[in-house]
Amino acid sequence: MRFERFNQDGNARRGQLVMSRGRVQTPAFMPVGTAATVKTMTPEELVAAGAEIILGNTFHLMLRPGAEVIRRHGGLHDFMHWERPVLTDSGGYQVWSLARLRKISEQGVTFQSPVDGDTVFLGPERAMDVQHQLDADIAMIFDDCTPYPATREQAQASMELSLRWAARCKDAHGDHQAALFGIVQGGMYPDLRRLSLAVLVDIGFDGYALGGLSVGEPKQMLYEMIEDLVPLLPDDRPRYLMGVGTPEDIVFAVSMGIDMFDCVLPTRNARNGWLYIQDSVIKLRNAQFAEDIRPPDPNCGCYTCQHYSRAYLRHLYRANEILGARLNTVHNVYYYLSLMAKIRSAIKLGRFSQFAEDFFAKRGIKPRPGSAVSGAI
Amino acid sequence: MRFERFNQDGNARRGQLVMSRGRVQTPAFMPVGTAATVKTMTPEELVAAGAEIILGNTFHLMLRPGAEVIRRHGGLHDFMHWERPVLTDSGGYQVWSLARLRKISEQGVTFQSPVDGDTVFLGPERAMDVQHQLDADIAMIFDDCTPYPATREQAQASMELSLRWAARCKDAHGDHQAALFGIVQGGMYPDLRRLSLAVLVDIGFDGYALGGLSVGEPKQMLYEMIEDLVPLLPDDRPRYLMGVGTPEDIVFAVSMGIDMFDCVLPTRNARNGWLYIQDSVIKLRNAQFAEDIRPPDPNCGCYTCQHYSRAYLRHLYRANEILGARLNTVHNVYYYLSLMAKIRSAIKLGRFSQFAEDFFAKRGIKPRPGSAVSGAI
Repeated sequence: MRFERFNQDGNARRGQLVMSRGRVQTPAFMPVGTAATVKTMTPEELVAAGAEIILGNTFHLMLRPGAEVIRRHGGLHDFMHWERPVLTDSGGYQVWSLARLRKISEQGVTFQSPVDGDTVFLGPERAMDVQHQLDADIAMIFDDCTPYPATREQAQASMELSLRWAARCKDAHGDHQAALFGIVQGGMYPDLRRLSLAVLVDIGFDGYALGGLSVGEPKQMLYEMIEDLVPLLPDDRPRYLMGVGTPEDIVFAVSMGIDMFDCVLPTRNARNGWLYIQDSVIKLRNAQFAEDIRPPDPNCGCYTCQHYSRAYLRHLYRANEILGARLNTVHNVYYYLSLMAKIRSAIKLGRFSQFAEDFFAKRGIKPRPGSAVSGAI
Repeated sequence: MRFERFNQDGNARRGQLVMSRGRVQTPAFMPVGTAATVKTMTPEELVAAGAEIILGNTFHLMLRPGAEVIRRHGGLHDFMHWERPVLTDSGGYQVWSLARLRKISEQGVTFQSPVDGDTVFLGPERAMDVQHQLDADIAMIFDDCTPYPATREQAQASMELSLRWAARCKDAHGDHQAALFGIVQGGMYPDLRRLSLAVLVDIGFDGYALGGLSVGEPKQMLYEMIEDLVPLLPDDRPRYLMGVGTPEDIVFAVSMGIDMFDCVLPTRNARNGWLYIQDSVIKLRNAQFAEDIRPPDPNCGCYTCQHYSRAYLRHLYRANEILGARLNTVHNVYYYLSLMAKIRSAIKLGRFSQFAEDFFAKRGIKPRPGSAVSGAI
């Protein structure tokens, strides 16, 4: 993987990741395809929405259908009919958030599979092996996610374990052709985070991610952590903010210098009948849309807005029709990917700070003194 | 609507319905779009699968979202973004099969809405009014569906009520531009059925349907009823066998002279993980498909078979992923519509009886003496 930086506007950066399966323009949003499917969508629909990279998940795929089945298909791309790059998460976060009877040792984590109750082991070497079998274009190190809240001692022990695992992941990865990203941990303690980052840079990775955020902490704490850490991330490597966030979070984090995002919000909210439009959200359960023959967003170019009314989408939502989840997802993913395109365009034109100011102003969010946009939300 | 007959092969007929929104080649299968959506599919996907007409439903649509909302969209076509012809069922069957606290009077039926518990009335005039608001291309008369089993007296009373309602539907329809089909009732009593048919022909409709079949009676009884009645249906009008059936049922009924079909089997079975292939069915829950990297049907031209393996579809099925329901539905609808295309081609070439014989032989079904294919299943 090659990371090319085209231009910078304030701290916001525009560039691209060049990989054998295609390029990814940054700042990039990666739709989440946890179980080898971006829920409800075909790959062709993702491409039409502008997706250049999607996320897959070690944890889910090793449990079901199993890495071996996917390897027999020639990897995750052939398995799910997606030809562009894939970034796979290592399973560290999911072991923490989804697995029961979790036992953490120096070696790794033993847990009960939420799929069939089997006892499963996942550690640094296994996480790398699975990601190699999936034939990911970008693999993530296997880390220990620190809960929130956590004492300083807990956060430090967890962070140090993650660093030892990071080194083992780097070894296990060897000279595999996939890019490998490190993940900064350290809970909500900035100095622990900085230490984590320094050691990761010392080990050396193709990109650096901020992990263990958006785990229940106040939004303000998340934003301060981003402000504190992003300037310290190596300039010449892509910077990935894991699992974040709302459109507002993304615009803020881009303003701080983040290049890559993933989040389930556009797809999950779609299934719950929430549609992102210009400066707000349509909640289809609201009766006000029952006879509203307008498209969700008259200015949107997505398939859904081209052909369907709010009343029709509300009808499908109320009737629990699968087509409703589909059409809503198509719209929301298009919204997120269009937002990224607008962000990149603004950076290219040197107008990103104006873009961000307008973006927050339209949402009634005022910038905090001393910070262009942060602390706003 | 104009019905053009091109050629006949034995009793099997090939022709087309010509309507302002497009032509429908017959014998035709109509995918079921009960709630203004053929479950999981977009209209573009239906067209790609070869659909020329779909079914809508008075009962479901009047209850949710209401006929008025659809009328405001300019009708069902604009509401659901389907430009080709639509046939709407009158609600007679659904009142019988889905509604609680049903009270039948000469006027019509009062029942409790399964959507919100409201008391609702549906009768001949209301059913026609709703179908006009939906702007159906083919409307069906509102009938009383006779349960199975039923005594001769019950069946006769029900059939006679249906005939009085049929006359009122014809009146209420007036000179509306939609085609109007009569529905033959009479339970499982051939002489009552023949009487029903004779009176309907006397009233005069654009097409004739066999209703109240596939309601729990033995398959043999269904087949005998078709054999008995179809020769009596007017030659110059389309003949529609409502709610039937399996691929075998369809080939049999075509051999008797039926022109139109609808059935939920391809779509419902898809959501349950059943895939129709050449001469059998793949049930994705079976472990034998866990590592099967072949497409569902290597000879099928559908989107699903072009891009996905049995193992992937089984994975989606087990993970309860919406994309699985979608891909299975695309395949099954394509299968049904391709079967109809093969049937039409065989009739055109004067080879339908050979086609039907091969079709049943491959399924291990032997023709009954004295009947080309009936009684076989």
